[in-house]
Amino acid sequence: MNTSSSSRPGSSPYRVALAMPAATDGQFFPEDVLRNLPPELSLVTGKPLTEYGSPEALEVLEQVDALFTCWGTAWIDSAVLDSAPRLRSIHHAAGTVKPHLSRECWERGIRVTSAADENAIPVAEYTVAMILLANKKVFRLSGLLHRERAGLDPLTLFPDIGNHRRRVGIIGASRIGRHVLRLLKPYSLELRVADPYLSATEAESLGATLLPLDDLVATSDVVSLHAPSLPSTAGMISRELLGTLRPGATFINTARGELVDQEALIERLALGDIDAILDVTTPWVLPEDSPLYTLPNVVLTPHIAGSLGTELERLAGSAIAEASRAARGEPLLHEVTLAELDRMA
Amino acid sequence: MNTSSSSRPGSSPYRVALAMPAATDGQFFPEDVLRNLPPELSLVTGKPLTEYGSPEALEVLEQVDALFTCWGTAWIDSAVLDSAPRLRSIHHAAGTVKPHLSRECWERGIRVTSAADENAIPVAEYTVAMILLANKKVFRLSGLLHRERAGLDPLTLFPDIGNHRRRVGIIGASRIGRHVLRLLKPYSLELRVADPYLSATEAESLGATLLPLDDLVATSDVVSLHAPSLPSTAGMISRELLGTLRPGATFINTARGELVDQEALIERLALGDIDAILDVTTPWVLPEDSPLYTLPNVVLTPHIAGSLGTELERLAGSAIAEASRAARGEPLLHEVTLAELDRMA
Repeated sequence: MNTSSSSRPGSSPYRVALAMPAATDGQFFPEDVLRNLPPELSLVTGKPLTEYGSPEALEVLEQVDALFTCWGTAWIDSAVLDSAPRLRSIHHAAGTVKPHLSRECWERGIRVTSAADENAIPVAEYTVAMILLANKKVFRLSGLLHRERAGLDPLTLFPDIGNHRRRVGIIGASRIGRHVLRLLKPYSLELRVADPYLSATEAESLGATLLPLDDLVATSDVVSLHAPSLPSTAGMISRELLGTLRPGATFINTARGELVDQEALIERLALGDIDAILDVTTPWVLPEDSPLYTLPNVVLTPHIAGSLGTELERLAGSAIAEASRAARGEPLLHEVTLAELDRMA
Repeated sequence: MNTSSSSRPGSSPYRVALAMPAATDGQFFPEDVLRNLPPELSLVTGKPLTEYGSPEALEVLEQVDALFTCWGTAWIDSAVLDSAPRLRSIHHAAGTVKPHLSRECWERGIRVTSAADENAIPVAEYTVAMILLANKKVFRLSGLLHRERAGLDPLTLFPDIGNHRRRVGIIGASRIGRHVLRLLKPYSLELRVADPYLSATEAESLGATLLPLDDLVATSDVVSLHAPSLPSTAGMISRELLGTLRPGATFINTARGELVDQEALIERLALGDIDAILDVTTPWVLPEDSPLYTLPNVVLTPHIAGSLGTELERLAGSAIAEASRAARGEPLLHEVTLAELDRMA
């Protein structure tokens, strides 16, 4: 008896291939992962498609039921779809699908999934770690200790310290913002969230108090930014808002540098009374003479909050699980609709 | 109707006083906390006892049912107990009671409680944050970025990176070790624990795999030390064990410097293939010329993992809650027995 509820006739496996740069494929879908695909998936070729026009590529496209995509996947438009008559689903092993999928994919009924939920995990984990260390002034105190090489009295230097009853403000109830709140539940912190699309009841169910953005920024000990980068959010962390940060506060940005008035942030940091932990900046790599490299109250990290190393396997695992569900005709867990595409960063 | 199950006659309040240095008292028991004690507790005086021989001190001791103690409380022996005929319980707002309580306290039937459970919380929180950042090589990469002021490729520098399926080894299923394991459950890490007094089943209930110490050290990506400092554990992290740490591993010490062969640790660190995050060292403040200040793979913090600032309120809150239970004749939650005293660090 066939227990599958698949709408496809028979039980021939779902044929899959990779469409991504060769360099990326080995990180996300290493050989042992490809060798151990679930039985309902059949790999047409282990060689990833980097373009769709060569005879080899056309032969693969002719056969595939599904494609795995990733950072740097070449643009898929109607010409490519014409070459892939069996294509029924595309499974992205990363966050946004905007850079590589044209609207035609949806218009032709091809189902699209993304690993955005899994991609949010490492960013939230990095943020949680940074919040816990920010409340203890770990970076400031460690820097001082290495420079001064003498006993330090933390409470004299920073009387307002500790992870008990401190106010943590999350800007944006995005996937990442929500996961940060979820991970912070076991701690005795006062959680607050600002998001124009969130209700007070929803905020409460996340364990947080809903506050207007300006209240949240002006009254939190740590402010962490998790809003999407859209034309409407560019510069949302304005000079005015930055001016209201409490002395002793820490500002964390793992989202996008463009969300912040960086000149105003640098000026506020130069006063020395707030700290910043920045995994993202404008531009992506700062010029050599940026004060952010030298200010003692700034910790820069090179865009590492997101998925890296072993965390990439989690993304591929999610895409493979979605392809399996598609193959078995089961509901997809992380489908991206056309309406969502338009809201995507 | 009196709903209290107290064995004391009548309902007169339980008289309490502080026995601790004046400087400490304001941090743990600030005025607003003392003004808002639960109704079953009555403060004899807001002035803490720093000694027990003066007429003022004797007058207080004469009246007290309970004492709150803290870091630096003066030694309580039979002479002090003779002056405190009503004393029924001692509530310590910190970890170990060994430095200030003589065995006579127990021998006279005085009940003793400690806030060791609450004191474990901030150490575990610091450790969790450091483990999450260690697995992403955040300190190494941030240091490089600030020095080199250029784009970095994390995966080229540290291919073995990420918080997914990495092996985290906890040495010691102490209060702190157990809380670290509890807090790490929501993460997709492989947790292991080494403790000579723990069974494999107990380890499993903590979400971890029980391993012999040498296996754990040799195969974990992060090794974090949470063993008690006793004569039998001095130098337990030996030169031999340190030699087996995997290249790329991070060693975290929030326990005591004396547990580690520090010379051997420095020699291993000088090879550059492991990292260390040390909140404790031998001596407590390192000499100016210690290589631990300058090695690029070492993060020192000045003994800040434990309770500080707002976290001290949590300790006082725990001691006050225990005194309330004693006053109401309810079971105590954090009692220290004489047998436990002998095992205490």
